[in-house]
Amino acid sequence: MDIEKWLRDSRTTVEKWIKEDDIVHFADIGSVEEVMRYSLLAGGKRLRPQLVMASTAYLGLPPETFREVALAVEYIHTYSLVHDDLPAMDNDDLRRGQPTAHKMFTEAMAILAGDALLTEAFVKMSRIQSAKAEDVLSAMDYLASAVGREGLIRGQVMDLAAEHATVGLSELKIVHRNKTGALFRAALVIPALLSGNHMRQQTLGQYGEHFGLAFQIVDDILNVVGNPALLGKNIGTDRERGKATYPGLVGVEEARRLAEDHRIRAKIAIGSEPGAEILHSLIDFAVDRQW
Amino acid sequence: MDIEKWLRDSRTTVEKWIKEDDIVHFADIGSVEEVMRYSLLAGGKRLRPQLVMASTAYLGLPPETFREVALAVEYIHTYSLVHDDLPAMDNDDLRRGQPTAHKMFTEAMAILAGDALLTEAFVKMSRIQSAKAEDVLSAMDYLASAVGREGLIRGQVMDLAAEHATVGLSELKIVHRNKTGALFRAALVIPALLSGNHMRQQTLGQYGEHFGLAFQIVDDILNVVGNPALLGKNIGTDRERGKATYPGLVGVEEARRLAEDHRIRAKIAIGSEPGAEILHSLIDFAVDRQW
Repeated sequence: MDIEKWLRDSRTTVEKWIKEDDIVHFADIGSVEEVMRYSLLAGGKRLRPQLVMASTAYLGLPPETFREVALAVEYIHTYSLVHDDLPAMDNDDLRRGQPTAHKMFTEAMAILAGDALLTEAFVKMSRIQSAKAEDVLSAMDYLASAVGREGLIRGQVMDLAAEHATVGLSELKIVHRNKTGALFRAALVIPALLSGNHMRQQTLGQYGEHFGLAFQIVDDILNVVGNPALLGKNIGTDRERGKATYPGLVGVEEARRLAEDHRIRAKIAIGSEPGAEILHSLIDFAVDRQW
Repeated sequence: MDIEKWLRDSRTTVEKWIKEDDIVHFADIGSVEEVMRYSLLAGGKRLRPQLVMASTAYLGLPPETFREVALAVEYIHTYSLVHDDLPAMDNDDLRRGQPTAHKMFTEAMAILAGDALLTEAFVKMSRIQSAKAEDVLSAMDYLASAVGREGLIRGQVMDLAAEHATVGLSELKIVHRNKTGALFRAALVIPALLSGNHMRQQTLGQYGEHFGLAFQIVDDILNVVGNPALLGKNIGTDRERGKATYPGLVGVEEARRLAEDHRIRAKIAIGSEPGAEILHSLIDFAVDRQW
């Protein structure tokens, strides 16, 4: 299949959904919605909502079935970036070449917009109509647990702590399993929870595990040997910041071998069932991408 | 009834529930749970969980029926205080005589602990067993909407904007309806949503509206004429900060008259149904309190 076209089309769909949301549609000047809109429309691959759509297709449902979930995971991803960029956290002035929320507005408004994006994700989830109420509650429990103190936030805390310590390969894996992996897994597993497909819940969780790690390893590799023009950002920044990375710990060649290993394991997890094509192409994209 | 005793007993119950939570029980040094625990156990009246219990009793159910809701509203209240105290927001070093979370730990950990407390509230809500799944979803929608961009967060944004503008009585009322009122109302209305009691949902919402405004007006009055020893904090701080308050806008006497008006309206809303005793005593406490 033409994965580049699928990525373009699904991205367009997600961005249409975001623009149709009241938050973006009725954002007054000086309101928190203005900051939410700015951050939601500041670019990005839209990979997490795309994983929701790919997982939904794998389950034999129309990929647009769980629009609320696609938006919820993108809103949570955006909230985590807005808070992560704050002066007290990573202190970033730019993201994807544009001023970060606290530079464009104020630090107070960036904190509140992040809070509001996280909260809005749960509003969206609670309004899912295309699943049984019991299954929606399981999905909300899974999502909130994945991005809370035992998931995404734990990853961020470990990442902060890692700035002042020597980090080994196993610790680096735990940081990424939580910081980025937990939300990738949630995006993939939640459609299975919502459709009550417990068998595929397991396989999607395994795929998500390997997808997340492969994605992160390749991110680290591209920061060393990538083409800045294709990436749309500078390379070498991880090294400048003294960040623990896969190529930093084991070298580019061994990091590539690890990424290949995760590609194979992800593919084994989902097998060759009908509907698995997009997921196969997505893990290929995650490993082979130049951007 | 002896409301002072009820307040002591229910506060003890709530604090026992908090201490039994895994967050507090297994909080390692350096973890986000350590910061969450510190903030959750830093005192406070526990008024929002008490409103959950009083509302549940009014509905004819054992007051402990919705323990998860009691914890969820207290966790959300605590998150909002932790973020509100941050340097970029109110920049407070002390709360209830103790260092605020970002002074005790770091600003980054306070941001993440606030995020984790908000997220944990939705984990708790999604695990409610004592209601129908459809009703739990309605309750989650109500709660997330009450504390998001159209509720609590809007109130905080308006409060920030009010620092640089002249605020009239009607604007002040809107700030408080959102900033503190929305969570008070949610604490009262959610037990009605969970028990599917739509008639009492209306009356509890009206009671909550007047309870919240009465509570805030008396807070403002006590900051002018209260006894610091009973309050456990300094008075005159609102005036020093140039904060818009009810006594500042209309004088202490008229502010008292407004609080009395809200007391009467709250009492009319709930009527003299069996089970309404605690709610009657609570609005009396909110208006007559010296602390």
